Amino acid sequence: PMTILISNDDGVHAPGIKALSDALSPIARTTTVAPDRNCSGASNSLTLTNPLRIQTLDNGYIQVNGTPTDCVHLAIRELMDGEPDLVVSGINAGANLGDDTIYSGTVAAAMEGRHLGLPTIAVSLVGRELQHYDTAAAVTRQIVEGLQQRPLPKDMILNINVPDLPLAQIKGTRVTRLGNRHKAEGMVCTKDPAGRTIFWLGPPGQEQDSGEGTDFHAVANGYVSVTPLKVDLTAHEQLASLQTWVGQL
Amino acid sequence: PMTILISNDDGVHAPGIKALSDALSPIARTTTVAPDRNCSGASNSLTLTNPLRIQTLDNGYIQVNGTPTDCVHLAIRELMDGEPDLVVSGINAGANLGDDTIYSGTVAAAMEGRHLGLPTIAVSLVGRELQHYDTAAAVTRQIVEGLQQRPLPKDMILNINVPDLPLAQIKGTRVTRLGNRHKAEGMVCTKDPAGRTIFWLGPPGQEQDSGEGTDFHAVANGYVSVTPLKVDLTAHEQLASLQTWVGQL
Amino acid sequence: PMTILISNDDGVHAPGIKALSDALSPIARTTTVAPDRNCSGASNSLTLTNPLRIQTLDNGYIQVNGTPTDCVHLAIRELMDGEPDLVVSGINAGANLGDDTIYSGTVAAAMEGRHLGLPTIAVSLVGRELQHYDTAAAVTRQIVEGLQQRPLPKDMILNINVPDLPLAQIKGTRVTRLGNRHKAEGMVCTKDPAGRTIFWLGPPGQEQDSGEGTDFHAVANGYVSVTPLKVDLTAHEQLASLQTWVGQL
Amino acid sequence: PMTILISNDDGVHAPGIKALSDALSPIARTTTVAPDRNCSGASNSLTLTNPLRIQTLDNGYIQVNGTPTDCVHLAIRELMDGEPDLVVSGINAGANLGDDTIYSGTVAAAMEGRHLGLPTIAVSLVGRELQHYDTAAAVTRQIVEGLQQRPLPKDMILNINVPDLPLAQIKGTRVTRLGNRHKAEGMVCTKDPAGRTIFWLGPPGQEQDSGEGTDFHAVANGYVSVTPLKVDLTAHEQLASLQTWVGQL
Repeated sequence: PMTILISNDDGVHAPGIKALSDALSPIARTTTVAPDRNCSGASNSLTLTNPLRIQTLDNGYIQVNGTPTDCVHLAIRELMDGEPDLVVSGINAGANLGDDTIYSGTVAAAMEGRHLGLPTIAVSLVGRELQHYDTAAAVTRQIVEGLQQRPLPKDMILNINVPDLPLAQIKGTRVTRLGNRHKAEGMVCTKDPAGRTIFWLGPPGQEQDSGEGTDFHAVANGYVSVTPLKVDLTAHEQLASLQTWVGQL
Repeated sequence: PMTILISNDDGVHAPGIKALSDALSPIARTTTVAPDRNCSGASNSLTLTNPLRIQTLDNGYIQVNGTPTDCVHLAIRELMDGEPDLVVSGINAGANLGDDTIYSGTVAAAMEGRHLGLPTIAVSLVGRELQHYDTAAAVTRQIVEGLQQRPLPKDMILNINVPDLPLAQIKGTRVTRLGNRHKAEGMVCTKDPAGRTIFWLGPPGQEQDSGEGTDFHAVANGYVSVTPLKVDLTAHEQLASLQTWVGQL
Repeated sequence: PMTILISNDDGVHAPGIKALSDALSPIARTTTVAPDRNCSGASNSLTLTNPLRIQTLDNGYIQVNGTPTDCVHLAIRELMDGEPDLVVSGINAGANLGDDTIYSGTVAAAMEGRHLGLPTIAVSLVGRELQHYDTAAAVTRQIVEGLQQRPLPKDMILNINVPDLPLAQIKGTRVTRLGNRHKAEGMVCTKDPAGRTIFWLGPPGQEQDSGEGTDFHAVANGYVSVTPLKVDLTAHEQLASLQTWVGQL
Repeated sequence: PMTILISNDDGVHAPGIKALSDALSPIARTTTVAPDRNCSGASNSLTLTNPLRIQTLDNGYIQVNGTPTDCVHLAIRELMDGEPDLVVSGINAGANLGDDTIYSGTVAAAMEGRHLGLPTIAVSLVGRELQHYDTAAAVTRQIVEGLQQRPLPKDMILNINVPDLPLAQIKGTRVTRLGNRHKAEGMVCTKDPAGRTIFWLGPPGQEQDSGEGTDFHAVANGYVSVTPLKVDLTAHEQLASLQTWVGQL
């Protein structure tokens, strides 16, 4: 059978990673390696100043005192016998849509797998007071089975967002581009109980580009959104104009 | 005069941020807000589970118990009177080249500025046992002055890498694409003094794509490398082929 | 039945807390609240600059992103219905003997219970490559049952150290004073993989006062050591001589 | 001249440590080693799972990514040439009185010095919106000078609390015992901006034993409080009665 590495950013005890592991175990040999704490917002961060430690839990999952990227790197380089055929990250509790994607630890875990040469997908469940992890799990299993027949094009990862609906109410799958949001709201500035000023990052802004073709639009209309993401950040189409600009400095 | 927000990922006490601040203060009103600890490898990570706190140091710099992205966000949203004209991140102690860029807190600080609508640049000094922060500072000042005449094209940031050479030995400036490396070496697996197993992330791999046109190549040949980076991760050129693929699932 | 709060410093996944919970559940209503990470060496530290969060695991244990003292405080003040009759901390993986006691998170969890007005005991298993958690668990159960008949004198806690032996080989119980050690060995000064200097706290020093009557002596001779610890740090017997000294300043 | 190690728990940038260093530098060769972050509430905690790193700041102070206890241990074992003659911890921003002492990182730094064989004192400034660090600094200098003539009795440390008053309004010095407080108020249970439940440790309780002879009483009446603290936690006076109790188990 195929071998799959499973990770996430919500941490090893999150319901989403269990739903994912349960859905993929019947069709693959799975290894689950995830952060010991909630790492939402971890992006592609690496732990460089402290060492990593692992602990195997009663259910066989391995927890790491690190980030999602650390987990995937450590699993592939040190913990697994041979490279897995696929890396699946999720199921994230909440959306990874639009420009928020850059902050996502769920997406970052998938990127790290790609960086190490493996096909990878990131899966998120979109909604509040989430109820349908089984929907996202079933969708993921279907995509994973599809990948066995038709390998992914290289140099990209798939960012999948699933509406929090019963499977029967999902209307289909849309290939999308990332939309984007208005700037985030201001931060929450308050006092701790000792009277000292603290700042919390506030809620994300309203959607700005959420029209037809975006991931926001697909999910809002009951579709699974599948967005191909690049690993190369170069703005290739800007190279020529920038050359002119730099030449004038 | 223009107003500039300065940040970094090496932390508020790093020599690079002082060199940068000293170089830009004569031509702009600068505000320096940076992490209280070394955040190398922080990528675009956000602090979501704990609040942020600030402390103003004797030299006027503000330190934050958070990531580079937190610092830029907090500075622009809460600490500055009005938005700055420019965000400059660095001078990083060491290269931010090729696919390592995705892990960089220096680049992430610049991205956050872009995300909030501002022109931004990230600056790194490439070498070991670094001696020429003044070179990188002078190059940055020149680019910042150029930006006042010719604004940057939108939706991108500039990732600048400067060789650790005396200014007179810099051969010029090259617009480049990101190169890439072979996969990183294995991790360092060892024991702590109590005899427990620990893992350290290992050194980066050898350069793989470092030919003409890459950032690696420019710096290795004594040029300042200027790479335009995108903020939109969508692999637009893959949308059509992926549509076919998804349609076959 | 009596109600018991169980905590530790090795973290919620440590084998010792499970052995303790399993041994006490038949004779009491137990609530287990423990740190989500290994907090060895946490002493009586409190988390003041960040908030605490809880997560209930599949086995009913509650994990907290805080210290042992945080856990006991949070459990008694917020999580339990009414105060427990007893707080038991452990079973620590390794000794808490002599002057090392001051650094112990296991002992600190017990102190916090005492501070909140409750009888408390701390239990540690002494040895390396520990095999006999069941011995320490049986000893603890016996002491807990004894406490129901004969309440503990106030203003102290019991610090119990059990040799890592089969129960049948335990020779008895000794009431002891804390011994003490020679100063700790020097620290381990080394380099991380990036070549930067790091320091690790080294192994504890050799025993200095480990004669008859000490906790070290009891355990080394196959006895369970029971040491009464004070919560009041005042050196009452020094008050008079210090008065003289201060008067001469 | 004598050599003095200075540390604290409020962190290397706190005003109290600067006041202390400035007051003692004229009469001693001082080395200042302190945490890089506020460690209030750190008690005697040790950093065991991660390594320590140091950074020397522009003013010559050395900051450590660790606890007060780590700082004193590291300074004496690795950073100083020879052992200092004295360790002084503070000036803490706020009281370290009564049973709160057990949580204090300021007192713990002093204890660590004692543990390594050196005479040590801990100094705190009592009040809110503190204005008179110079008073506490002057009092400390006077006590340090006195110590050169009359060494401290062994096996104890001095815990000094100074009212936040102009020096001329200080009425004198009292040798005191630790008072104690009523149990702390309940915790502050609230939500973070994402709607998740968080708990903050609440304010300390009202004073319970603050009568004549206590540290609370001395400070409230305008006196400097000097309390001798033990390092040995054994409740020696309980050994006999506990022997009886254990014999009946």
